Parts: sequence; C-alpha cells; structure tokens
Amino acid sequence: MAAPTADIGLVGLAVMGENLVLNMESRGYTVAVYNRSTDKVEKFVNGRGKGKKFVGAMSPQEFVASIKRPRKVVMLVKAGKAVDDTIATIAPFLEAGDILIDGGNTHFPDTTRRAKELEPKGILYVGSGVSGGEEGALKGPSIMPGGNVAAWPEIKPIFQAIAAKVKDANGAEAPCCDWVGPEGAGHFVKMVHNGIEYGDMQLICESYNLLKDMCGLAPAELSGVFGKWNKGVLDSYLIEITSEILAYTDPETKKPLVDFILDTAGQKGTGKWTIDAATDNGVALTLIAEAVFSRCISAQKDERVAASKVLAGPEVQKVSDRDQFIADVEMALYASKIVSYAQGYALMAAQAKANGWELNNGGIALMWRGGCIIRSAFLGKIKEAFDKNPKLVNLLVDPFFAGELGKAQSGWRRVVGAAAASGIPVPAISSALAYYDGYRTARLPANLLQAQRDYFGAHTYERLDKPRGQFFHTNWTGRGGDTASTTYNV
Amino acid sequence: MAAPTADIGLVGLAVMGENLVLNMESRGYTVAVYNRSTDKVEKFVNGRGKGKKFVGAMSPQEFVASIKRPRKVVMLVKAGKAVDDTIATIAPFLEAGDILIDGGNTHFPDTTRRAKELEPKGILYVGSGVSGGEEGALKGPSIMPGGNVAAWPEIKPIFQAIAAKVKDANGAEAPCCDWVGPEGAGHFVKMVHNGIEYGDMQLICESYNLLKDMCGLAPAELSGVFGKWNKGVLDSYLIEITSEILAYTDPETKKPLVDFILDTAGQKGTGKWTIDAATDNGVALTLIAEAVFSRCISAQKDERVAASKVLAGPEVQKVSDRDQFIADVEMALYASKIVSYAQGYALMAAQAKANGWELNNGGIALMWRGGCIIRSAFLGKIKEAFDKNPKLVNLLVDPFFAGELGKAQSGWRRVVGAAAASGIPVPAISSALAYYDGYRTARLPANLLQAQRDYFGAHTYERLDKPRGQFFHTNWTGRGGDTASTTYNV
Repeated sequence: MAAPTADIGLVGLAVMGENLVLNMESRGYTVAVYNRSTDKVEKFVNGRGKGKKFVGAMSPQEFVASIKRPRKVVMLVKAGKAVDDTIATIAPFLEAGDILIDGGNTHFPDTTRRAKELEPKGILYVGSGVSGGEEGALKGPSIMPGGNVAAWPEIKPIFQAIAAKVKDANGAEAPCCDWVGPEGAGHFVKMVHNGIEYGDMQLICESYNLLKDMCGLAPAELSGVFGKWNKGVLDSYLIEITSEILAYTDPETKKPLVDFILDTAGQKGTGKWTIDAATDNGVALTLIAEAVFSRCISAQKDERVAASKVLAGPEVQKVSDRDQFIADVEMALYASKIVSYAQGYALMAAQAKANGWELNNGGIALMWRGGCIIRSAFLGKIKEAFDKNPKLVNLLVDPFFAGELGKAQSGWRRVVGAAAASGIPVPAISSALAYYDGYRTARLPANLLQAQRDYFGAHTYERLDKPRGQFFHTNWTGRGGDTASTTYNV
Repeated sequence: MAAPTADIGLVGLAVMGENLVLNMESRGYTVAVYNRSTDKVEKFVNGRGKGKKFVGAMSPQEFVASIKRPRKVVMLVKAGKAVDDTIATIAPFLEAGDILIDGGNTHFPDTTRRAKELEPKGILYVGSGVSGGEEGALKGPSIMPGGNVAAWPEIKPIFQAIAAKVKDANGAEAPCCDWVGPEGAGHFVKMVHNGIEYGDMQLICESYNLLKDMCGLAPAELSGVFGKWNKGVLDSYLIEITSEILAYTDPETKKPLVDFILDTAGQKGTGKWTIDAATDNGVALTLIAEAVFSRCISAQKDERVAASKVLAGPEVQKVSDRDQFIADVEMALYASKIVSYAQGYALMAAQAKANGWELNNGGIALMWRGGCIIRSAFLGKIKEAFDKNPKLVNLLVDPFFAGELGKAQSGWRRVVGAAAASGIPVPAISSALAYYDGYRTARLPANLLQAQRDYFGAHTYERLDKPRGQFFHTNWTGRGGDTASTTYNV
C-alpha cells in the first residue's frame, strides 16, 4: 500500500462536504474523500475535484490508510444515526491519537456521549459546529470546535486556514474559529447560534411588519430603510440580505417577490433543543422561545385566516412622524437584539457551569463575527465586553451595552405601546422589553407568588428582613396544618 | 388467611396519602394501607385512622391479600424511581384484571411506558393526576385518571365519590373526576393543569404589581380589589386567596406580611415538562413559557439588585383615573387568562393527535372546575364551549370567548402600553396580547422569514398565488446555486 499523502480526510460528499474540502484544498491541503455511496467519490474526483489534490477512497480501509498520522477525519453526515454508523465504519481503522471530527448539526449531548465512548480507544473526538451554509463552507465558514482538547493543536492550522476572517479591534486579521470547550461544547455553542438566528430573524420580521403596516411603506422603500440600518448599529448579514430581498422583483409578476411568498415558516430541531436547554438550566430564554413559537403560529395559516374574521382588533394607527417611528423601530430592534444575545450568553454560562466547562466567551463572539448567518458588527462589541470583563455576569450590565439600552429604551417603549394599540403582534420585541424591565427590577412581585404557594401548598418562603436560607410557613387561614412540604415518600 | 375485606388499597402514607384514604373511608369504603416503612402504617392506624375502617398491612403480600378482587391499588409515592420500585414490590402479588393506579405527579411518558409493561400481565394500569393539595385530598380533590379504560367502571364509583363536586350548567351536582383518555393521558392533563397554574399565578402577580406601582395601592386596598374581582368574571380560588393574602397582617411586624416576603420563586419539573411538550408538538405555549421564565428571573435576586443600579428605566407614570385603570387591568388579566387556556387546550389537542388519544375536552374543564388550584367559574364557560362544539379548533374562536376578548381588548392594550411606558414588566400579559394579535392576523410577516431562509439556505418557499405544496427557490443574488436543501447524506 502506498504511503499516506492526505493531510486530512472527509466522509460525506453532499454539497456542504464538497465545498468544505474544496476550501481545504484551495489552502494547500491534500484531502482524502470517502462516501458510503462510492459513486459520489468518483463523480467528485472527476468533476469539481478534477486536477486538484484529492485522494478518492473506495473503502474505509483505503480512506483511513491514505491519511497521514495522526489522522484527522471530518464527518459531514446527517445528525443522528448516520453519525453513529459512520463512526462504526471508520473508527475500527483508526489508532490511538487519531482525531475524529463531527462537523454536522448534532445535538450536543450525543457528542458528549460519543467523545466518552471513543476515549478508551485513545481516539480524540471533536464535535464542531460549522455555520455559513454551502457558500460559507466553500469561501470561509464560522467553525466552532469542541471536545478532546488534545486534538486542537493538530487541527488548528487547517481549521483556522479555511475559516472566515474578520478584522479584530486592533485591525488585525482573525479567523472565525477557535477552541470552544470540552465534550459537546462546540455543538452546544452552534445550537445556541442557531437559536439566536431564530431570534434575529423574528425581530427583523416584526420590524418589517411594523414599518409596512404603520408607515405604509412599499417593499422598495423598506429595502432602503434596511439598507440604511445596515450602515449603523444593526450592520449585519441578515439586515443586508433583508434589504436585498425587499428590492427583488419577481420575474413572473414584475412585482416585489416578497409580497407573493406564503407566510408560513417551518422549523428544525435546533430551536426546540435551545429551549430545552434553557428550561433544563432555569435560564429565561424568552426571546428565542417567542421566536420559535411565532413560527408555530405562522404555520397555522388556515386557522389564522378563519380567526381573522372572528376576533376583533383595533384600527391600525398610521404614524404621524414617519422618520421618528423608523428610528424608534431601529432602536426597538437593536435593544431587543442585545437582550437576545444576553439571554443566549446566560444560557451558555449556565450550561457550562452545569457541565463543568470553561467556555471561551470572547472567542465565541469572534467565531460568530464572520462566516455565519448571524455575523454582525455588533458581535465585535460583545467580544470587547468579554475581553474587558471575562466574568461579566450578564451582557446587559456591560457599560457599553447598558449605555446603548439606555439610549434605545424610549423608542423601544413607544414601539411596544404603538404595536399594542394598533393590534400588530410584536412577541419578540415586547418579550425582550419585559425581560429588560424584569432584570432591572430589584423587587419583583414574586413575593405574592411565594405567598400563594405557601398558602395552598405549604411551600414556605424567605423574608426580606431575615437572612437568606431561613424558611417560614404561615397558616394563612387558621385552618391548615403546619406541614412544610408536599413531597410524598413511602 | 382471612377473606379480603378492603374495597381499595393505598401504598404511601405521607400526608397526601393519609388524607386521601381518610376521604375514601369517610365515603363508606374500607381501605387497606401499606407503606415501605411499616412504622408509618402502625402510627396511622393507631392515630388518625383509629376506630375507622382501615386494614393496616405489614407486608406487600398481606396488603394485596386484604383487598377484594378485582383489586384496586393506589400508589401515592414520589414520582420517578419510587414508582417503579413500588410496582416491583406490589405487582408480583396482583392478578390479571387487578388495577394499579399511580396517583402521584408522574411525567406522562413514564405512565405510558408502565401501562405497556404491565399490559402483558393483564394488570390494568391507571395514571391519575390528583390536584388540590393536602386539603383537597381530604375534602375532595380534582382527579384526572387515564390509562387502561377497562379499569374505569371499577374505580369510577370510588373516585367520583371522593372527588370535589360542582354544580353543572343545569344546577345538578357533578364530580370533578372523569375518564381522561388512554396511556399517560391522565398525567399529561395534570401536567397541563400545573402549567396553567404557573400562568394564572404569574398573571395575578403582574396585575398586583401594576396596581401597586401605578395606582399606589396599599395591600389592604389591593385585597379589596381582588375581593371585588372574585365576584366577577375572574371568580376563582387563586383570586380569592390573593385577596386573603393581601389582607394578612404579619404577627411579628404588625404590617402586611406580603411586603416582607422575598421575591424569589422556585419551580418544580412540571413547568419545564409542559414547555417541552409544547416544543415537541410545535404548539405556541407562550404564556406558560413566560410564566416559567419569570420565575427564573425572580430567582436571580442578587443580579437584579445589581442591575437595578446600572440599567436605566423611565419614571413610573401614576395613573390619573384609578377606577378606569383597575378595570383595564381586570380586563388584561381576564383576556390573558383566556389566551393561556386556549394555548393549554391547543397543546392537549396536539399531544392527543400525536398519540392517537381521544381526549374528553369538556370533561377536563369540569374536572378542573372544582377541587384544584385553578378552579374557577371561568372553567364552566370552557366546558360549555366544548359541549357546544366538541371539535372547537381554538378556544379563542368560541363565540362566547371571542366576544369577551372583543370587550376586553381596549383595556388590555392600554395596560400593555402603560406598562411599557412605565417600565413595569408584564411578560405574560404582553405575550398573551402578541399571541392574540398573531393568531387573528391572516397574513403574518413570515413571508420575509421564508425569503431569508431561501436566500441563505435554499430552503424554498410556497407562494400565495400558487397551490399549497408547490415549492419555489430563487437565486436571489445571481451567485448561488439551485440546490433545494442543505441536508447532508452520505
């Protein structure tokens, strides 16, 4: 058998996989490629990969043998059973010190499990989020690797070479790829990224809807508004493409295409996973939850059409000062977005604490800064916040963001009031405001809630005028007993 | 061995179990009691149970042998492993046709699993929610049994005898216990009940907070407001106890006790389970989610106190017309509560569909009508809505509730606007309004969201001017390919 020549190998030649290996090859690496349906290997090597430094393998043995040691194998297959199947196919040919990387959209607990299963064999397992879609994979994605840290020095040069690049605060070029943390941390952070993406998209939709209905702006005018926003604090990929979408003319009707698209959005598993992680950790992830639920409501198109004829609403109040309202909506979107990222970071902190992970908070902001769907100038500010204070307890109280929220809040509040008065749904924007107002309230009405729980369930309460950890029960009616708990034990 | 004399048996003599068997005995039933720690059996039989028709058993064999066939055994033990352990202890002595009932707070998938495991042995398994706390267990709880329907004729007389009673629409007495559905349906409905309880309590807290801060009402005055509300559309147990709590004077300080209670609320698993079920089924359960998340925020007391010094907010605007504002808050609470129950029923419909269950919607409203924490006059109206139209697609579009929402909406909208302007968090009230406005909107802005997903991920979209089920992809930039999906397959 010939001496191995490949620097890295990839299993899974769908479009993402093809684009990722073309990216690697373009940076000077020789890449071994394998696919369960081996006709795809031939097709790729003789097609898009023709004349390039690819080694097409027709069997797992041949594939593994063609890679230089310590071997680096990336799997880009469908999350779930296909990953386990691929591991079962490839791992028997790997040796201690070899590195196996799952680059798909895996649920992070699965990555933690697989890392533990492969540890006794000495295989260094890595779960890496890869974001940026097919174009990102080819030109420079955001890459979020986590798992066995011993793998990092080996894969760092290739991963950082193929990743998107951004300018850091000092103007130096930085790759959107860094080590995230142990076990499933890489896939966990990718999941939170996707949840945040749900939130960002929902916020843009609510803003678009407000401007459309309350200012009566046409798509071309709306495109201009988003185009202008893209030069300010909201500068980001999603605002940019929104402007382009709103400017797009349908070739068939010669009218704005956006007006012909059905308003029913689907959802994949990651929104649900993110909410599950939030409820597991007791973290108030309200904005992403509202965004996921809004997609559910959007999908009930027939019910909504029927309900629109039955349920009363107010007249939409056209705004008198259009420029002021546009500025208010910009601030509402900006402030809500700060809340969403604050909640996402709070979730990451809680999961990290639960799992004993040390997460690279600033590094995560930098990884999201370019290459991926949520890339934005804003993430540079988040990186700065964590660089200044790595122990920052909540993004909202960072001096920069606290100042921005202070400036934005008047417009934000006016938008929530106007939407309520006009009957325009703003679930994410209003939920974000409620979170902001709740988080900055020293004394919430949960005292009454604790009294209720003590009244009907003898759950006990603490007192403001007594040290924490002392629990009191009141016999509110004179009827009840003095039981302190309703847990049942045989 | 003596002939069996007990009509039913109970395992688990904590306070709930003791109260439940005292309730049964008071209705004329002879009850066998057993507990893993048998000293509790002796203590009970010679204490609260002295001179009554109890059969104290010192072993599982003796316990089972003392019950008449087909045997009915209720387990009231801690959810989780203790239930499996109890089944392992008791089931070997049961025979085909005997009935085993879990009356604890079990997660419904566990009940489905156990029902299936016991089916081959011919044991009829029932999972029954029991609500009303310790006092309810003694005097008449709400009971929600589901599982193997063959058990129902056998347990119906006892269960309906011990359940709370309410007057139905015709003035006849009806028990708050009816058959819910197959498998884990009884525990599932109990879980949704608990989720709704979270929502009701949060709505009351937000209303209390608004009246306290914006009208400057003292606890005694607030007690009067809630007392008055309890005679109107909000007539319910939780409003009633809120009025009593607000009137309660702390014996130590001689001031209203509620003002001394710490504002940090805990949460148990059922809130999380309810949200999980919602995300599993793609149901927008926004109000309960906001209620659960609000408890999470309340628990961050130290963070909130710190943030209150850093994050800017507006001055609270004192209301000019106090009576009008109180009436508005009453309508905001009422309308939000309708939304919460509509969401809860939507979740039950979705889970029932997913599991192939036929749920007894009107019966569920009747079961919750009395005996449990969320009992209210309001639930009688929900029962009427489902009696009139068992196929009602959403509670909001029932003619009665649609009319009530139409009347309530002006005040509701003013409250959300006033809260936003004054910086008072109303996450549940504003989320409910956003749901109402989203659900009654024929055309939501999800068209833009679908365009975004198609732009960056080639997810495709449907068109308003084409039949459903036809999917289109646009090459928005002229740069991308024409791939229709980004799923990876090896």
